[in-house]
Amino acid sequence: MIGINFDSQVDEGRAKGILTEIYHDPMGGWFDLPVRVDMEELTNIKNTAKKIQEEAEVLVCIGIGGSYLGHRALIEALRPQSGVEIIFAGNSLSRRELDYALNQVGDRDFSINMISKSGTTLEPAVAFDAFKKKLIEKYGIEEAYARIYATTDAETGTLHDEAVANGYTRFVVPDNVGGRYSVLTAVGLLPLAAAGVDIDLLLAGAADFVKKIPVEVLNGESATPDEIEEITIKNPAVQYAWMRYNLGARGYDTEVFASSEPATLFFNEWLKQLFGESEGKNHQGILPDSVIYSTDLHSLGQFMQDGRRNLFETIINYPTDEMNAKMVTAVKMAHASGGIPVLEITVSSFDERGFGELIQFFETACAVSAKLFGVNPFDQPGVGAYKNELKKLLA
Amino acid sequence: MIGINFDSQVDEGRAKGILTEIYHDPMGGWFDLPVRVDMEELTNIKNTAKKIQEEAEVLVCIGIGGSYLGHRALIEALRPQSGVEIIFAGNSLSRRELDYALNQVGDRDFSINMISKSGTTLEPAVAFDAFKKKLIEKYGIEEAYARIYATTDAETGTLHDEAVANGYTRFVVPDNVGGRYSVLTAVGLLPLAAAGVDIDLLLAGAADFVKKIPVEVLNGESATPDEIEEITIKNPAVQYAWMRYNLGARGYDTEVFASSEPATLFFNEWLKQLFGESEGKNHQGILPDSVIYSTDLHSLGQFMQDGRRNLFETIINYPTDEMNAKMVTAVKMAHASGGIPVLEITVSSFDERGFGELIQFFETACAVSAKLFGVNPFDQPGVGAYKNELKKLLA
Repeated sequence: MIGINFDSQVDEGRAKGILTEIYHDPMGGWFDLPVRVDMEELTNIKNTAKKIQEEAEVLVCIGIGGSYLGHRALIEALRPQSGVEIIFAGNSLSRRELDYALNQVGDRDFSINMISKSGTTLEPAVAFDAFKKKLIEKYGIEEAYARIYATTDAETGTLHDEAVANGYTRFVVPDNVGGRYSVLTAVGLLPLAAAGVDIDLLLAGAADFVKKIPVEVLNGESATPDEIEEITIKNPAVQYAWMRYNLGARGYDTEVFASSEPATLFFNEWLKQLFGESEGKNHQGILPDSVIYSTDLHSLGQFMQDGRRNLFETIINYPTDEMNAKMVTAVKMAHASGGIPVLEITVSSFDERGFGELIQFFETACAVSAKLFGVNPFDQPGVGAYKNELKKLLA
Repeated sequence: MIGINFDSQVDEGRAKGILTEIYHDPMGGWFDLPVRVDMEELTNIKNTAKKIQEEAEVLVCIGIGGSYLGHRALIEALRPQSGVEIIFAGNSLSRRELDYALNQVGDRDFSINMISKSGTTLEPAVAFDAFKKKLIEKYGIEEAYARIYATTDAETGTLHDEAVANGYTRFVVPDNVGGRYSVLTAVGLLPLAAAGVDIDLLLAGAADFVKKIPVEVLNGESATPDEIEEITIKNPAVQYAWMRYNLGARGYDTEVFASSEPATLFFNEWLKQLFGESEGKNHQGILPDSVIYSTDLHSLGQFMQDGRRNLFETIINYPTDEMNAKMVTAVKMAHASGGIPVLEITVSSFDERGFGELIQFFETACAVSAKLFGVNPFDQPGVGAYKNELKKLLA
């Protein structure tokens, strides 16, 4: 159960309208995904993960943005021990970094999970070429192709076509789920399962949250006032979205996501992508930032305590040991006296179930929040800008 | 040679005054440290590093804030292969994290470098207790104490006293260098040398920059107009400080440090500490943030391209491959058309020499910048706030 420590005067009618819009959006597929899992696909993912564990010591996961951050965040947080080692590649254009990743694999047995909706994004394409070459040199073409797992569009695109031509095992990036909302699709689930993460429990945690907003109420079916209140005023994601919108309207234009578990550093990065890419449009939006306590109390802590007063802080409380929890209490008291609004989100467990619920909570909150700010939570028109310039330079 | 791409109308007289103040400040010891290295201490550090490499597979570096970030940043960037593995501990209060670090060491041979001016900071003290216990269990008291290296105050404090009583090898945190300016003292140099970083080259790079501001000119000795121009108007650190101050005055209140080498992620964290802790006071200051390109173009990139227009960007250009460099050019063009002021700092080499120069450049720029903003670059009054609350809770 996600807990929050604030009450933000949600407008019930507007909230219901926004939730209905999100659910019916062509890119709203993630909204109830965890309660309508395709069991055949899930079994296929789990069996493939087992095959990878048998054939490889390392799985090279190639992808960028939404095809990278979510599963990396969970693997770093959960530190699974029972599966293969995951090495990430294709998330930058640095040749130094690519060579380092190739060296890390070394002469160990490995397989590749290439994750790209289109297959044309430059960063993963360059890395895929390099690792495919290494794979073919090591195993010969036939076995190499049997060790490539392509997560891509169901029907079209460069990667799809290559996968069909060469017989790679294929998994689908759904059309109705955008990159930054895709961690609970095959995009994230295959590498997570290969690494040893319990993906059933992850999906069960996410489903716990989905059940708080039964889609029947959004489908135009009649609903009781109690039911509507439950999915709007009483829903923590809606509450949280409203709270940050209200803070934004009062000039708090930077949100600092804080946690006291260093292992969640990349989960905070996932949050920064989710909110930054969903909301940073039309020359507005709340800038997402992140800190780890108490590490960063000896860094950004000074700025937070005494610097410019436009920050608010969202503390994600994971279950932790007593001294660490006391430290967080101390920080809250210090920051409150320093004039920083502090929101708290409490997670039930530091495991797959807790993170599943947290992911679904934040995705829902982010979409509602973007709608409140009057922008489309599902597009990213600005990301094309550098790609277009780069195309010209490389032409 | 550090290069910059802007000219920011430096006030020569004010710049000379500020540099003179910094040089004479009781906490200004770092300002010319690299040109007055104590060769005996340096030899001692290098010999000790060799001893650690002979006796251990892992060096556990215990410290937080300035006793942690600088050497971690350089080890992650340079990825030295010739020394011991470094495992960091004591930079949070999470018991989960401490247990993980203890497990990472496992049954391998290890030694400890405990870094704390006072020895009383809670985070490193807790980790030190745990690792000292493990060390004594493994080696017995006598050998354990011979494997502990304490970097601490020269004369007083809990750690100093314990080190003297137990005979730990000692290194000194100078009184006139604050934590976030201390990476080129024994604080950073011992773990760096143990890891296999060439600390002579690092100091030589830093000295390259120090020589741009001969202290004779700040000592009240007569100087020619040319000499004064050289250390002020023509100095890149002074130029950079002035530029960010001018941008701050125009409402650009968030600075995004950007680089296209993922290995510099923690160097950006070091920058965030340096600037955030030096400037974030009196309810003002520029919020330091950071990104890695092109990774984060698929994350915060959208916000930067189209979001709120209060950001400026400082790109740190390391020598890199051609495609990665073209990507950065594309980003600059896209961001310029998106309305983001873009500053560029160009580093001569991606090695110890380049980073040494860059560290000295940023430390100097940060101190000048804080002075322009009218705050003390060397204190951190806000960091005590959570510590005081925590003391009450633990009492």
